[in-house]
Amino acid sequence: MSKKSKNGANHRARQRKRFDHTIHPHTRPGTVIVPEGALAPLLHVTAYGPDQIVEKRNATIAQIRELRNKYPVMWIDAVGLGDAALIEEMGELLGLHRLSLEDMATVPQRSKVEDYPHHLFAVTQIPTYNGDLCLEQVSMFAGKGFVLSWREHAGNCFDIVRKRLQVTNGTTRSSGVDYLLYALVDAVIDSYFPVLEQLGEVFDELDDRVEADSEPACIAQMRDLRHDVRQLRRIVWPLRDAIDDLVRSPPEQITQETLIHFRDCHDHAVQIMDTLENYRDAGSDLRDYYATSISNRMNETIKVLTIISTIFMPLSFIAGVYGMNFDAHESGWDMPELRWKYGYPFAMGLMAVVALGQLWFFRRRGWIGKGKQRGKSVDEG
Amino acid sequence: MSKKSKNGANHRARQRKRFDHTIHPHTRPGTVIVPEGALAPLLHVTAYGPDQIVEKRNATIAQIRELRNKYPVMWIDAVGLGDAALIEEMGELLGLHRLSLEDMATVPQRSKVEDYPHHLFAVTQIPTYNGDLCLEQVSMFAGKGFVLSWREHAGNCFDIVRKRLQVTNGTTRSSGVDYLLYALVDAVIDSYFPVLEQLGEVFDELDDRVEADSEPACIAQMRDLRHDVRQLRRIVWPLRDAIDDLVRSPPEQITQETLIHFRDCHDHAVQIMDTLENYRDAGSDLRDYYATSISNRMNETIKVLTIISTIFMPLSFIAGVYGMNFDAHESGWDMPELRWKYGYPFAMGLMAVVALGQLWFFRRRGWIGKGKQRGKSVDEG
Amino acid sequence: MSKKSKNGANHRARQRKRFDHTIHPHTRPGTVIVPEGALAPLLHVTAYGPDQIVEKRNATIAQIRELRNKYPVMWIDAVGLGDAALIEEMGELLGLHRLSLEDMATVPQRSKVEDYPHHLFAVTQIPTYNGDLCLEQVSMFAGKGFVLSWREHAGNCFDIVRKRLQVTNGTTRSSGVDYLLYALVDAVIDSYFPVLEQLGEVFDELDDRVEADSEPACIAQMRDLRHDVRQLRRIVWPLRDAIDDLVRSPPEQITQETLIHFRDCHDHAVQIMDTLENYRDAGSDLRDYYATSISNRMNETIKVLTIISTIFMPLSFIAGVYGMNFDAHESGWDMPELRWKYGYPFAMGLMAVVALGQLWFFRRRGWIGKGKQRGKSVDEG
Amino acid sequence: MSKKSKNGANHRARQRKRFDHTIHPHTRPGTVIVPEGALAPLLHVTAYGPDQIVEKRNATIAQIRELRNKYPVMWIDAVGLGDAALIEEMGELLGLHRLSLEDMATVPQRSKVEDYPHHLFAVTQIPTYNGDLCLEQVSMFAGKGFVLSWREHAGNCFDIVRKRLQVTNGTTRSSGVDYLLYALVDAVIDSYFPVLEQLGEVFDELDDRVEADSEPACIAQMRDLRHDVRQLRRIVWPLRDAIDDLVRSPPEQITQETLIHFRDCHDHAVQIMDTLENYRDAGSDLRDYYATSISNRMNETIKVLTIISTIFMPLSFIAGVYGMNFDAHESGWDMPELRWKYGYPFAMGLMAVVALGQLWFFRRRGWIGKGKQRGKSVDEG
Amino acid sequence: MSKKSKNGANHRARQRKRFDHTIHPHTRPGTVIVPEGALAPLLHVTAYGPDQIVEKRNATIAQIRELRNKYPVMWIDAVGLGDAALIEEMGELLGLHRLSLEDMATVPQRSKVEDYPHHLFAVTQIPTYNGDLCLEQVSMFAGKGFVLSWREHAGNCFDIVRKRLQVTNGTTRSSGVDYLLYALVDAVIDSYFPVLEQLGEVFDELDDRVEADSEPACIAQMRDLRHDVRQLRRIVWPLRDAIDDLVRSPPEQITQETLIHFRDCHDHAVQIMDTLENYRDAGSDLRDYYATSISNRMNETIKVLTIISTIFMPLSFIAGVYGMNFDAHESGWDMPELRWKYGYPFAMGLMAVVALGQLWFFRRRGWIGKGKQRGKSVDEG
Ligand SMILES: [Mg+2]
Ligand SMILES: [Mg+2]
Ligand SMILES: [Mg+2]
Ligand SMILES: [Mg+2]
Ligand SMILES: [Mg+2]
Ligand SMILES: [Mg+2]
Ligand SMILES: [Mg+2]
Ligand SMILES: [Mg+2]
Ligand SMILES: [Mg+2]
Ligand SMILES: [Mg+2]
Ligand SMILES: [Mg+2]
Ligand SMILES: [Mg+2]
Ligand SMILES: [Mg+2]
Ligand SMILES: [Mg+2]
Ligand SMILES: [Mg+2]
Ligand SMILES: [Mg+2]
Ligand SMILES: [Mg+2]
Ligand SMILES: [Mg+2]
Ligand SMILES: [Mg+2]
Ligand SMILES: [Mg+2]
Ligand SMILES: [Mg+2]
Ligand SMILES: [Mg+2]
Ligand SMILES: [Mg+2]
Ligand SMILES: [Mg+2]
Ligand SMILES: [Mg+2]
Ligand SMILES: [Mg+2]
Ligand SMILES: [Mg+2]
Ligand SMILES: [Mg+2]
Ligand SMILES: [Mg+2]
Ligand SMILES: [Mg+2]
Ligand SMILES: [Mg+2]
Repeated sequence: MSKKSKNGANHRARQRKRFDHTIHPHTRPGTVIVPEGALAPLLHVTAYGPDQIVEKRNATIAQIRELRNKYPVMWIDAVGLGDAALIEEMGELLGLHRLSLEDMATVPQRSKVEDYPHHLFAVTQIPTYNGDLCLEQVSMFAGKGFVLSWREHAGNCFDIVRKRLQVTNGTTRSSGVDYLLYALVDAVIDSYFPVLEQLGEVFDELDDRVEADSEPACIAQMRDLRHDVRQLRRIVWPLRDAIDDLVRSPPEQITQETLIHFRDCHDHAVQIMDTLENYRDAGSDLRDYYATSISNRMNETIKVLTIISTIFMPLSFIAGVYGMNFDAHESGWDMPELRWKYGYPFAMGLMAVVALGQLWFFRRRGWIGKGKQRGKSVDEG
Repeated sequence: MSKKSKNGANHRARQRKRFDHTIHPHTRPGTVIVPEGALAPLLHVTAYGPDQIVEKRNATIAQIRELRNKYPVMWIDAVGLGDAALIEEMGELLGLHRLSLEDMATVPQRSKVEDYPHHLFAVTQIPTYNGDLCLEQVSMFAGKGFVLSWREHAGNCFDIVRKRLQVTNGTTRSSGVDYLLYALVDAVIDSYFPVLEQLGEVFDELDDRVEADSEPACIAQMRDLRHDVRQLRRIVWPLRDAIDDLVRSPPEQITQETLIHFRDCHDHAVQIMDTLENYRDAGSDLRDYYATSISNRMNETIKVLTIISTIFMPLSFIAGVYGMNFDAHESGWDMPELRWKYGYPFAMGLMAVVALGQLWFFRRRGWIGKGKQRGKSVDEG
Repeated sequence: MSKKSKNGANHRARQRKRFDHTIHPHTRPGTVIVPEGALAPLLHVTAYGPDQIVEKRNATIAQIRELRNKYPVMWIDAVGLGDAALIEEMGELLGLHRLSLEDMATVPQRSKVEDYPHHLFAVTQIPTYNGDLCLEQVSMFAGKGFVLSWREHAGNCFDIVRKRLQVTNGTTRSSGVDYLLYALVDAVIDSYFPVLEQLGEVFDELDDRVEADSEPACIAQMRDLRHDVRQLRRIVWPLRDAIDDLVRSPPEQITQETLIHFRDCHDHAVQIMDTLENYRDAGSDLRDYYATSISNRMNETIKVLTIISTIFMPLSFIAGVYGMNFDAHESGWDMPELRWKYGYPFAMGLMAVVALGQLWFFRRRGWIGKGKQRGKSVDEG
Repeated sequence: MSKKSKNGANHRARQRKRFDHTIHPHTRPGTVIVPEGALAPLLHVTAYGPDQIVEKRNATIAQIRELRNKYPVMWIDAVGLGDAALIEEMGELLGLHRLSLEDMATVPQRSKVEDYPHHLFAVTQIPTYNGDLCLEQVSMFAGKGFVLSWREHAGNCFDIVRKRLQVTNGTTRSSGVDYLLYALVDAVIDSYFPVLEQLGEVFDELDDRVEADSEPACIAQMRDLRHDVRQLRRIVWPLRDAIDDLVRSPPEQITQETLIHFRDCHDHAVQIMDTLENYRDAGSDLRDYYATSISNRMNETIKVLTIISTIFMPLSFIAGVYGMNFDAHESGWDMPELRWKYGYPFAMGLMAVVALGQLWFFRRRGWIGKGKQRGKSVDEG
Repeated sequence: MSKKSKNGANHRARQRKRFDHTIHPHTRPGTVIVPEGALAPLLHVTAYGPDQIVEKRNATIAQIRELRNKYPVMWIDAVGLGDAALIEEMGELLGLHRLSLEDMATVPQRSKVEDYPHHLFAVTQIPTYNGDLCLEQVSMFAGKGFVLSWREHAGNCFDIVRKRLQVTNGTTRSSGVDYLLYALVDAVIDSYFPVLEQLGEVFDELDDRVEADSEPACIAQMRDLRHDVRQLRRIVWPLRDAIDDLVRSPPEQITQETLIHFRDCHDHAVQIMDTLENYRDAGSDLRDYYATSISNRMNETIKVLTIISTIFMPLSFIAGVYGMNFDAHESGWDMPELRWKYGYPFAMGLMAVVALGQLWFFRRRGWIGKGKQRGKSVDEG
């Protein structure tokens, strides 16, 4: 618990509730209302061309206005949704459509890529997993000479892009806005693989636990896991479709070479979907496996009950018969065994014979004694 | 019960029956037959342009005829389907197709947008939820210079649009009929989110109840919930498709900018579908969870039975043996224990050994005593 | 049983068998073989234009040949498939394709609309429901100046069309062959709604019965109902598709206005499908509900068994112990209780303590006594 | 067993194995390798035009070469795949593509219609059912002036076509290669209906058996039946698609009139699919029904156990109490009933009261005695 | 265990983990990072035309550069991914796109065929099965005058192609790069059939085991098998789609004749999918069968328990009654049977009557004695 940051806890609360949308039904279309408790925005601007690059941390709108159109590409990497006025100002400066700004500020959005008159708008979620699945919304706008990315919290997702931008005359530096957009989308998609790996480990662990012992705890964890897989599918499915649409009918500002890279992105999204399908099937299998395990164990329990009853009921009956108060002294017909010298050993022997007969019967039926043999055949098979 | 208005009760009766269509099979196509018990219509007319606006509550057909084509846009907001003659008169005045009027008066209709020669026709349902899901039909007609909306009951769904109309030179006031139609459709779609939120809360609550204790009451509520989710899906699915068709091949009277707004509507409809899919999966999960809980508990019950039988049957058998009437005084072979000084303590000790042996066996099998340990591991896990 | 007509019984026999097709594998394509026991055909001819109308009941082929092309529209409404020669003669007179005649005479056909060189051919089923689902085949041919409809039995399905034809200068009278075809298709589709309503009532009733008491009778009825719903789906699904095809790529003889009416037909077919989907889900839900009810009841039964065993086994054991024949007179160690003055009350008290302890334990576990409380919470919830 | 011919047994062996393909992985594409144990081919040639017809049984390749192009249509009906050289010779004579020859000789193929540069190639399976589903591959080639059909075994499937060919100036005789191909495909499709009828009867019979008594034997038969239905679906599904493709984009050698006949074929294939869907659902229903029956019966068994335990455990306890050895002669507190005059009748009466109380309780719970009443309501319902 | 080669063990480890992708998230697109433990590459070059052929085992990049464009076709068959530098060098030499090289080195890839500006790129998996499913990635590049295939390990998959290349003027030798690519793809697809055959055998074996005896071991094996089938489906499904795309819109370098061969490939892929669908259904059936078997057996166990309890509880009760200490000597009402001469035989007879009555009841209910009869009917049926 304590290892989760405040943000993580915030995330978790969001994910735990079935309905996690923010509703502002009585607003006009395009109204920017920031999420409760959102962080104050920090703007990190990088403007570059093949052989020059400028970086400004904690930039202001004024500084951005100044830098605009001075360099082939300006990347504004914003973190924190907590200032509606700033968002609107930025939108005005870059000519962003009000509806796209509203979507950016409304958490969570379904993954999509939308072509507005003056810019592309892409939105999806960045996942992290530390026992619970946490999701952070990321919006990307690409227009003439600028890319604006806006995340909810600071994270290391875009560090790789920033690092590559330092390489003078590298592919990213020499390419335009479209390639930077690709690089960001690629970085977001790549952030799913570690989460898939962690989920895979939880599956493997759960597999082992169900195999070893079907404790009731498993069922809740299985359900959580299945829920997480479904939630990821619900994000990646439309993301894959959106990139597929982009690749099939690309906006004109995307070059042929960048398209090949977007195709690679699509391929990664398809791989993620494949893995999630795999996990979904694994989840169903686990549930079936668990249910059959319960049935199997109930069967075993009932067998124990049946064996014990079947052995002791006849024995108790025999004991009961010899406990009847017919007086062997009164009539020759009344339980002559009671007067026999070896009556007691005879009765005990009779019981032993009955008990052993039953055991033999159960053994032949395979209800007892063969258990270990079977266990072996499993190991060998 | 008493907190539901008369209308609510009416709604509920509709929803409770599996077959909730009104059938008038022996009528010619386009016959307007109003639902039983429908309210008398009230017409609220708002005619406006960018800088002028006129409102008439409880307007008459004559007043509407007079206002027609005097302002760029006339919005007739009708409430109550209870007057077939009025509906037909209105249809004649505005040139509405008979089949669309019939659909408007026939409750419930499947969501759809239809392009008639002289007007667009859209129909869908407005949901409310207060334990039961209630649905109210809303029809919208958009032709040259007018939008006609017709609901079953007065509600606050369109208040937001009316309020925005008051803003002189606001987007709605400056735009045409197409934007007003969008604003109404948007308002209808926005009315689903609070219902989804309430359903989500019921799910969360049900989740907790199933986890805490699997009372039989849950099963009926689960079923109701699943039914409500399915009913909402059945409304939103065709609505989403209809808006998608509208966006893909828009009628000419819809401008480019309004289309972008309709795309936003579509996006909301898709989000609602996503949430409903989520709820559907949650419903299946809950059902599986409940079924497994019953199995688990049955298993526990059978374990108790088996433990008690396995412990007491042998004990009773031993007691039965020493209750046999073999007379230790008659033959040295006859239950010599009865004559031992410590015979009774020996018998009791034998029973104690058997009982403790069984307990040890069950503990080793994990059937008893480890319960609490497990509970902990769940909390910690 | 006795309330079913002979035809109904005939229908039922058809529906009861899994395979209900007639096979004539060794015939050449286009051979008309009438169903066994089919009624002798009766022809009812109505020829009309906007201001004139002629009707002939029990018309002969000769009379039809005479009337042909004398009026804008001639409607031949045939009932009874029992005369192959007549069918072939009619086909020759009107220029109908042999394969369409074969389909008409082969019961049952899958719903379809086929465009033959000289005529349209539509075939589907008219349902009735009186405990069992009965289906009657109806074929419709529309060519130049004529519409031929052919049903298996007389019914009131087309009465509404006939009645509307009496209105001089009414829409039907003033329109052509295409509108009459629409009117007939519409009448057929409208005949599904009462059946849906009846099925809905059976569902509602079954719902109540499963809720009240899960008698084994339910399961067979559920299965029948699910089967009926599936059978209806199998008829309406292709019918909806066929009308959709007709509306999307209409044959030239269908006017724009009639197309709008066919779109309304399509809409009704979609509503029927929606309701059938609803019923299908309701059927699955009922089955799940029933299965869970059985589990719940088994659980209750096992609880009773466990409670009774858990209470009486220890009591019987105690009684058994004091029934052992250790003689308290022989050794001070031998069951001193037997010699106590209050030994018997002590033993009975011990038993009472054990029994009450168990009851307290079961009550705390919620196995007994809280039942009514729960029942209440269901009513209140 | 003995009533199956050698061929039937051969078929069965094929069907019984899950993997029934022949693999020749190390051959070059187009290598003809005949199945093991295939019959030696017999060629039956029929060459005809509208007014002449020649037939040659057991024809040789030389005879076929001679007959070629002498008549409008030459139909070579081959039976038996056992001679690779002959197949290759035939392929060379008629200009058949190597890959189509390979497919013909490789059993089983998925149903398909392929358009090779110089001929059409169609392949599918002919089913027969006599308890097991047997499948025989049939390949058809249609090129300029010839149709070649090749089956695995002699059967009566094409007799109907041969008979129709005898009719001088009949449709088949007057039409070309395309109509003969249609007639053969139609004959193959018609061969599915008797099999569906037989499967339907097995379903009906199984229905009755499950209803009457849920013997374990049913489950294996159900599984076989479901497997057969799936196998048929897997054949007819692609066949239907292939004919649909043929009808939608027909090769030029197929005339308009023949196309209408192929549409009829497609219609039949769709009907077969519909029936198979029906059977698939019936199979699922049967399985569910059987599972619920087991649950129901287990419930009944447990009820018997619970009733018997609940009645006799308290009785045995009472008997046990009066069997305790507290001596009524020693202390007034020690089981005074033993000394009562009517002590024994009192004890027996107590037991009777307890037993009757339990019976009354169980009757009120509906566990006993109401069974027959229910049975009646089923019959009446 | 010991019969698996080191490579096999390596494979297995890969397959056992749910998440088997390699992640290199912090690399720029197109970076070649070879898998851990990959073998050092061996290049086997075959350059040929219709009448000349040169082979070089363990070729170097220099030798390949020399051979390039000297012969119509050069096939470089590489094995082992263990040298990133070599891969990059090869890519540069042949003009391969960086992203395709990255995909080749990243194991596993989803099956796909991609059209890069200067070459085709295909990647898929070669399966082997020896109890576990092992997968080996194979990448194929086809550009102007060359085909490059790159596998993870040496295998005999391409031996058949190499052998056919030896035939002077054979189809492969006389055809171009496109036909060689086809031959390789065909060889890969053919490698699935033996695996399907082996899986089919495991299914058949598992079928028999479940039928004979439902040991818990089966369930784990079933799950593994289902997992393997799903994994194969996930490979073959996109492979089939990729080849279908290739056939539908072929790149210009593929000739008409080669296309027909690729269509054959597609056909094989479809057959593999069909078989996998079959296996998937078989897997579901097996699981259902197993679950029903458990239910059936639990039912049998409970029957044994019920029979034994129902027989012995009344008997023990009777014995208990006659074990009560009412003294027949004290009161005439106190168990007079104890004083009867034939009291004991009477009691024993009473017990026998009760026991036989129960047995008769159980026999009539079909719980005992009819078992064998049923078993027979299964064998006969
Ligand atoms: Mg809004
Ligand atoms: Mg939006
Ligand atoms: Mg990537
Ligand atoms: Mg989710
Ligand atoms: Mg989705
Ligand atoms: Mg899929
Ligand atoms: Mg899996
Ligand atoms: Mg109507
Ligand atoms: Mg309508
Ligand atoms: Mg909205
Ligand atoms: Mg519903
Ligand atoms: Mg639907
Ligand atoms: Mg969920
Ligand atoms: Mg026929
Ligand atoms: Mg037909
Ligand atoms: Mg209608
Ligand atoms: Mg059906
Ligand atoms: Mg429902
Ligand atoms: Mg091959
Ligand atoms: Mg082939
Ligand atoms: Mg046919
Ligand atoms: Mg199969
Ligand atoms: Mg298939
Ligand atoms: Mg379908
Ligand atoms: Mg059915
Ligand atoms: Mg990367
Ligand atoms: Mg890649
Ligand atoms: Mg092949
Ligand atoms: Mg898998
Ligand atoms: Mg995969
Ligand atoms: Mg199968």
